[in-house]
Amino acid sequence: MTTARIIDFIKTRRPEGPCLVVDLEVVRDNFHAFRHALPNSAIYYAVKANPAPEILKLLADMGSNFDCASVAEIQMALDAGATSDRISYGNTIKKERDVARAFALGIDLFAVDSHEEVEKVARAAPGARVFCRVLTDGEGAEWPLSRKFGCVPQMAVDVLVYAHQLGLESYGVSFHVGSQMMNLDAWDAALGDAKRVFASLSKQGIHLQMVNMGGGFPTKYLRDVPAAEEYGHAIDTALRKHFGNQIPRTIIEPGRGMVGNAGVIKAEVVLVSRKSDNDNHRWVFLDIGKFGGLAETMDEAIRYPIRTERDEDAMELCVLAGPTCDSADVLYEKNMYPLPVSLTIGDDVLIEGTGAYTTTYSAVAFNGFEPLKSYVI
Amino acid sequence: MTTARIIDFIKTRRPEGPCLVVDLEVVRDNFHAFRHALPNSAIYYAVKANPAPEILKLLADMGSNFDCASVAEIQMALDAGATSDRISYGNTIKKERDVARAFALGIDLFAVDSHEEVEKVARAAPGARVFCRVLTDGEGAEWPLSRKFGCVPQMAVDVLVYAHQLGLESYGVSFHVGSQMMNLDAWDAALGDAKRVFASLSKQGIHLQMVNMGGGFPTKYLRDVPAAEEYGHAIDTALRKHFGNQIPRTIIEPGRGMVGNAGVIKAEVVLVSRKSDNDNHRWVFLDIGKFGGLAETMDEAIRYPIRTERDEDAMELCVLAGPTCDSADVLYEKNMYPLPVSLTIGDDVLIEGTGAYTTTYSAVAFNGFEPLKSYVI
Repeated sequence: MTTARIIDFIKTRRPEGPCLVVDLEVVRDNFHAFRHALPNSAIYYAVKANPAPEILKLLADMGSNFDCASVAEIQMALDAGATSDRISYGNTIKKERDVARAFALGIDLFAVDSHEEVEKVARAAPGARVFCRVLTDGEGAEWPLSRKFGCVPQMAVDVLVYAHQLGLESYGVSFHVGSQMMNLDAWDAALGDAKRVFASLSKQGIHLQMVNMGGGFPTKYLRDVPAAEEYGHAIDTALRKHFGNQIPRTIIEPGRGMVGNAGVIKAEVVLVSRKSDNDNHRWVFLDIGKFGGLAETMDEAIRYPIRTERDEDAMELCVLAGPTCDSADVLYEKNMYPLPVSLTIGDDVLIEGTGAYTTTYSAVAFNGFEPLKSYVI
Repeated sequence: MTTARIIDFIKTRRPEGPCLVVDLEVVRDNFHAFRHALPNSAIYYAVKANPAPEILKLLADMGSNFDCASVAEIQMALDAGATSDRISYGNTIKKERDVARAFALGIDLFAVDSHEEVEKVARAAPGARVFCRVLTDGEGAEWPLSRKFGCVPQMAVDVLVYAHQLGLESYGVSFHVGSQMMNLDAWDAALGDAKRVFASLSKQGIHLQMVNMGGGFPTKYLRDVPAAEEYGHAIDTALRKHFGNQIPRTIIEPGRGMVGNAGVIKAEVVLVSRKSDNDNHRWVFLDIGKFGGLAETMDEAIRYPIRTERDEDAMELCVLAGPTCDSADVLYEKNMYPLPVSLTIGDDVLIEGTGAYTTTYSAVAFNGFEPLKSYVI
């Protein structure tokens, strides 16, 4: 997953300290793969995955739309060249004054999942389009979305009726099967729910037009994942099954799937030690950890592939930890990580699949360490 | 815990967005309390808890020393007016070039917990003083330090002999009973270990001079904690018990105990909603969450007191969550939080006891949200 361009950049530039290097060519390939796999769906890139201006510019130029979580992200998408009609304010938790700011910037498409949020949008963005997020169970996702976003389908019907009553355009339904979703059936169940919401509203004279199928498209971590085409096929089949010949407009919101495998973090081994003379396992400490950009190792949820220049040597399970004076800053301990026995202080390691959800997660200055640097090439 | 000065500041200045307000008078009181409780111990403030320049300046002026986790923190302490002899480089995980940078800045006191780290210090800071961190079991701590730092006491003996052989001054032993430690006996056990390391080395002609007793002094969260005096008394008793009339120089490193109760985060209720019509619990979403500074709610470890202007109304258990599009950004769900049934969108809430480990933990720009703002008054 580390491209020749990334290896060449690191060798030539020798950046000091931990850094993320993103290869735009991989992002470009990913965009083409999504467009090819789901030719009838509009792509809304989830800006929160990686808002680097170069990435937003590339995607804007390629015709992508943008799913934004805040007014700041909306501004970034606009700055990258996207027009406001290509931007969705996809966060279901918005301050009313932020809805107003977005509306003033021309944004016309808002996510909701409650009556209360509908009221804010109706007041601050009169006449705008809203889609209601429906809860899915997230089974099969490596980074489950729990119950934080969405409401049950029956309540979604009520929410969209209420939106209609308040003068908004009840435009559609959204769901998110969970990040890094490996189970192709997840979309089928969610699309079935979506269809039932469409049908209930239709009986009340409200005709939804759009299904936002969210993200969840996995990037390649340690194990193989079905390629984008397989996802596309499964989704197409499910759409036909539930909507027949009245397939609505569809949106997808890839974030991790668009940039995850495009980025590699270069880090350095700061210390390799044991806790006692008869300790069975070495502790390997890197100059990046949970607070420097690898927040998604929380509960050891995501296991990044790690490459070293000694990978042909014998391997040994190690505890892998970050550099801060915080005992929670341990990456892999319950499931230790195999690393070369010859790995030594000062070695570089490449942490692959880190293009998404790293730079912006980085702590601003914990322990005095700078936030993760980022290079987009 | 919210002082009149903090309430007045928030009322008068009406800062926009979530922010931390720290009352320096509380920090001053805490410093006096530590000095009074442990008059024979040198206070090394753990800069990582909150490195705000105003806090460092106050403590430097009051005669505090500083425990630093990085060269950047050392520079901050120097900038605040501390001389280099009042600064300890307390991170056991250091790049050799950072040891050299610290040594060039005049730092002469380094933490180690392995032979490998001793070698770095010997090369980059020849002749410096080192103390070896010993593993403690952390039982009784609300934020346990696990095994990440320190080595077993027998290995500490070997490490300090090795340091001596490499021309360093083997200066002492350190331990950390675990953050927010509620069990007064924890110091007794750790001081017993320290004494045994002293005795082993003494037989080899190496005379340690210092015990660094670390931090762990709790700040007042929801339940009462023994006051600083009780900690002082327990530690004093344990020192006499183990070291008799040869009590070494001692250091304490309060961080949370120095600033935790001095700070209050003002946040705003963004949304109050339910997931279904028959949902038993409301979800309350704030404009700050796990990635905006409240990282220590991870696994719901630390439960901050929360005040609202409606606390005299009836209370109801709620799920409390942050504003980002990340399902992990939930503060309290397994143990829901009692909040007023009348709490409504737009209300301010005060999250108390947040002076430590908040601002610097804040993500740099996750979801496009700004890092937590901080005011020191």
